[in-house]
Parts: sequence; C-alpha cells; structure tokens
Amino acid sequence: MPVLVVGSIALDHIKTPTAEHHQLLGGSASYAAVAASFFGPVNLVGVVGDDFPPQHKQLFADRKIDLTGLEVAAGQTFCWSGEYEMNMNNRKTLSVALNVFEKFQPKLPESYRETPYVLLGNIAPSLQRSVCKQVRKPKFVVADTMDLWISMARADLLELLKEIDMLILNDSEAKQLVEEDNLIRAGRKIATLGPRYVAVKKGEHGCLLFGRDGEFFSTGAFPLEHIHDPTGAGDCFAGGFIGHLARTDDISFANLKEAVIQGTLVASFCCEEFSLRRLEKLSAGEINERRTTFGSYIV
Amino acid sequence: MPVLVVGSIALDHIKTPTAEHHQLLGGSASYAAVAASFFGPVNLVGVVGDDFPPQHKQLFADRKIDLTGLEVAAGQTFCWSGEYEMNMNNRKTLSVALNVFEKFQPKLPESYRETPYVLLGNIAPSLQRSVCKQVRKPKFVVADTMDLWISMARADLLELLKEIDMLILNDSEAKQLVEEDNLIRAGRKIATLGPRYVAVKKGEHGCLLFGRDGEFFSTGAFPLEHIHDPTGAGDCFAGGFIGHLARTDDISFANLKEAVIQGTLVASFCCEEFSLRRLEKLSAGEINERRTTFGSYIV
Repeated sequence: MPVLVVGSIALDHIKTPTAEHHQLLGGSASYAAVAASFFGPVNLVGVVGDDFPPQHKQLFADRKIDLTGLEVAAGQTFCWSGEYEMNMNNRKTLSVALNVFEKFQPKLPESYRETPYVLLGNIAPSLQRSVCKQVRKPKFVVADTMDLWISMARADLLELLKEIDMLILNDSEAKQLVEEDNLIRAGRKIATLGPRYVAVKKGEHGCLLFGRDGEFFSTGAFPLEHIHDPTGAGDCFAGGFIGHLARTDDISFANLKEAVIQGTLVASFCCEEFSLRRLEKLSAGEINERRTTFGSYIV
Repeated sequence: MPVLVVGSIALDHIKTPTAEHHQLLGGSASYAAVAASFFGPVNLVGVVGDDFPPQHKQLFADRKIDLTGLEVAAGQTFCWSGEYEMNMNNRKTLSVALNVFEKFQPKLPESYRETPYVLLGNIAPSLQRSVCKQVRKPKFVVADTMDLWISMARADLLELLKEIDMLILNDSEAKQLVEEDNLIRAGRKIATLGPRYVAVKKGEHGCLLFGRDGEFFSTGAFPLEHIHDPTGAGDCFAGGFIGHLARTDDISFANLKEAVIQGTLVASFCCEEFSLRRLEKLSAGEINERRTTFGSYIV
C-alpha cells in the first residue's frame, strides 16, 4: 500500500563539534519520505523554492518517490540552521528562514487522495488538519508534532488529535502537552485526547508506545557508538513506522510494535552520517540485517 | 544456590514533595538482601548500631535471611537523610552520619565462605575487595558502585574490576568512569577493564547490559504512573539480578538477560512505597505476574 507524506522540505546548515555542512537536504517530509520509501511507494507533498538543488530532487526520484505533489514556488527554499553540543543530544536553532514555506498550503493531487496510510510530518497543526480534509477514508493517519506547536498552536493541535489515529512526539513534549511530570501518565493521558495510539520518542533511550485501552510497548534505541548527526532521526522513525504499516497493511497492536522497531532501525541509520547521506546508500537488506541483530538485543 | 550480600545497613530519613519519613530501613545491603530473598537463601553481611530497631531485624528474619554475618556494634546505626525533587529523578543528600559504619570491616562467618553467588553492594571498593578475598571459588561476583567511589577511590575501584564478573552502575557513572560522552562506548569500554559484564542502570529508561565479547541487551523499566520513593531501586535491581542467577544457577548470557528483567521488576515494586514497605508485602507470585505483563510490553 502507498504512503502519503506531507511536511517541510528544507535546506539545512548544520554544525556539530566536529564538522559543519551547508545546503543539506532536510525537513520533516524529506527524511520521512525517504525513510518510508524502503518499505513501498511514497506520495510526497511539499514545497521548495526555485533554488532547490537538482541533486536533492534526484535523490527523491532515485527512491521512486512520487513527486506529483511537490510544488516549486518562486523564491527560496525553507532554510534551517542549527548547532549540536558535544553530547549530540542538545541542539540549538541558529536561524530559520521560512521563505516559500511561509505560505505553504498543502494541495493533494487527485491521484494522492485515496492513499490509505498517511504521515502528517512535523508542520503546523492547521496544515496537518487541511491534509486530513483532503484524504478520502484513510486506513491510518499518523501525525508528528513538536514543542513549538504545543505552545503556539495548542487549540489547533487539540483539534487535530481528534482526527488522527496516532500522535508521535518526544518525551518532554508529551509531558508539556498534558502538563504531567510522569511520562507514563502523560502518554496514557494523550491517548484519551483523540488518537488511538501515542508514540513517545526518547532519543538514545528508545521509544514508548501507548494504546488507549492500556496497550503498552517499550523498546530501546539501536546502540550506536558514534552519532554523526541526529537531525531527522525522529522523522525517519515516523517514516519507517508508517512505511512498515503500509507494507504489511496491518494495524493490529502487534504490528504497530514491529513498526516501532522498523522506525527505530531506520532512525539509527539516519544518525550515522550527515543529512540523508546514509539513507542514500542504504538497502532494504541492511535494515533486515540490523533487525536480526536488534532482535537479539531486546529479548 | 545461596547468595551472599554485603553492603550498608542504614536508617534513612527521606523527604519527597508529598511526604517525609524517619527511621526507615535503608542501605544497599538491606534492599539487595530483601530483593534477593524472593529467589532463594541469602547470607547477609553488614553492621548496625545498638539502636537498630528490632522490627527492622525482624523484617530480615521474616524473609529468612541468614543473619549470622550481621554485626551489632556499640553506637548508632549509619544514618542517611535525603530529599527528592518533584520529578522524583533528582535526589540531594541532606546529611550522612556514618556512625558504626565508619569502622566497618566485613567479616564473613565460616558458613558463608563458600556462597557461590556474591553481591558486593554499594560500599567502598576497598571493603568490596576484602570480601572477594574471603570467599572461596565463587561462581559469579557482582559489584555495585557509585560516583563517590569513582572520584574518591578510583585506584581501588579499578583493582576491584579485575576481581569481579560484573559491575553495576548508572549511566552518568559509566560515562564518568571511562570519560566517555557516549553511553554505548562507555559500557563497552568498562567491559575491557576486568568484569566480563557491565550493567548500566538508566532509571525510568531501563537498563543496558554489555558483555566483553560484544554481547548486548537493552530493556525498558516497568512503567509506573506513580513513583513514591525510588531510594534503593538500584540495590533491589542488583539483588533481584543475583537472586535470579543463584536460583537458576546459570550464568549464560541468555540467563543474564532474564536476570536483568527480574532485577528490573523487583526494583519497580520497590518504587511503589517508601523504604522496603512494598517488598515486605510482596510475594513471588506477584513478581511472576508482573513478569508476564512485562513480557507483553517488550516483545
């Protein structure tokens, strides 16, 4: 089954304690779409400026991602600049230039409207909601969000929660959203606000999955000795997650657990090099191989 | 098979944002011995003052813990006073009075010397080493440690590492011990310093187990909505771990993984009430029941 991915497409400038890179392909939709593409067909919706480097577009095409929904607007592509601290866990944003992304209104081509599996990548909840209105009878809708929208667009986000099957956010965001100190209480509480499931990302500590009826799953991250660039790891998690669901066309809780693991693995590859460079070289066989290794790490 | 537990026995005064309690039974050996007692016979070595409340001694007796090695010295019992912050993760020590513990020299009764499974609870590495010298051909020796010894008794600790089969410490301590930012590198590095295995405790994020030959296991914590008092959870983890090993008399890596899970479960019960109050009421059946639940949470 195909996956619809909507989100931002950006040019990232990233600084780490050991390196600095410019004009990297970034944005929630770029990472998520490429991650999902290892599992099956992907329909991408996003906007870039007329400065968008052809090699970045080629990367999408090489991954057989449908670009009918990729809008090219006059002006510059959304640009994000960030810096990581020594431990690679703390990140600060140096600058954001929305550019063509400022007026982005996701428009689904007719050919996308019946995509059964939908990933609303991390963008404003109002835009995510507008996508919900354009898809017809989706089987499973996942939305990713972040602290910015929890504080700036809370009402929209709470409305969105009623329209989706699953929310993805990180641990501090989960606590922030429902004002809870305890992460278990926070996850369970969010699952009463609309989405049937909630995935709480904990970076190097893995992920927790909560279901409204008390279902629970906990898994660690794949152990990495060197994190070169964690940018986009959360988006790759979401992309791998929805990709696995779509490939198997099975939304049972047992299969959601496996989707969490598949997302975890794609995210681990993402961290091994800057931007999407590791995913560019990645093969489905490598994911399967890492799945076997990971299996021995968790049971 | 019996387990030998050596460590501190204390009277704790604990303050949390919602409660305050005095004269609680505490100390690394108290928690670890009671935790291990759910799995089989335990030989306890420790010292208390002549003020040690009889009901605390009775708790050990009720758990069928062998108290031949419990020394009663003239003076006051070791006393620790601490306070937890709102999130129950950050703790500050308000005061420590070593009292009779200051001159503690663990002396193993002859009947303890052939105990095959040994837990060196969190005390000075020099004392832990003196116990190693007194046991005859143990099958598996585990030592717990903490930041204090890493900074204050580093040379002793490094010597101890060559004499034990496994080290237990928390994530920040693991990084501190080998001066590594990355926890995976830290764990693997410690496993080259002597112990065949290293367990890294991560509190609410669970535990990582590293083996010298690249073995790895990762498990989450049991999800708790309310943490009443995390004091002693690490000691209970260690006690449950060694207890399971002793009960099964199997030191394969597959069984070490199960021991990590059993330790995790006993630690989760420990957090549900102050001091050892939850463990006082706990039954082996409840641990087994939680094991079944936990099984569905991790695979």
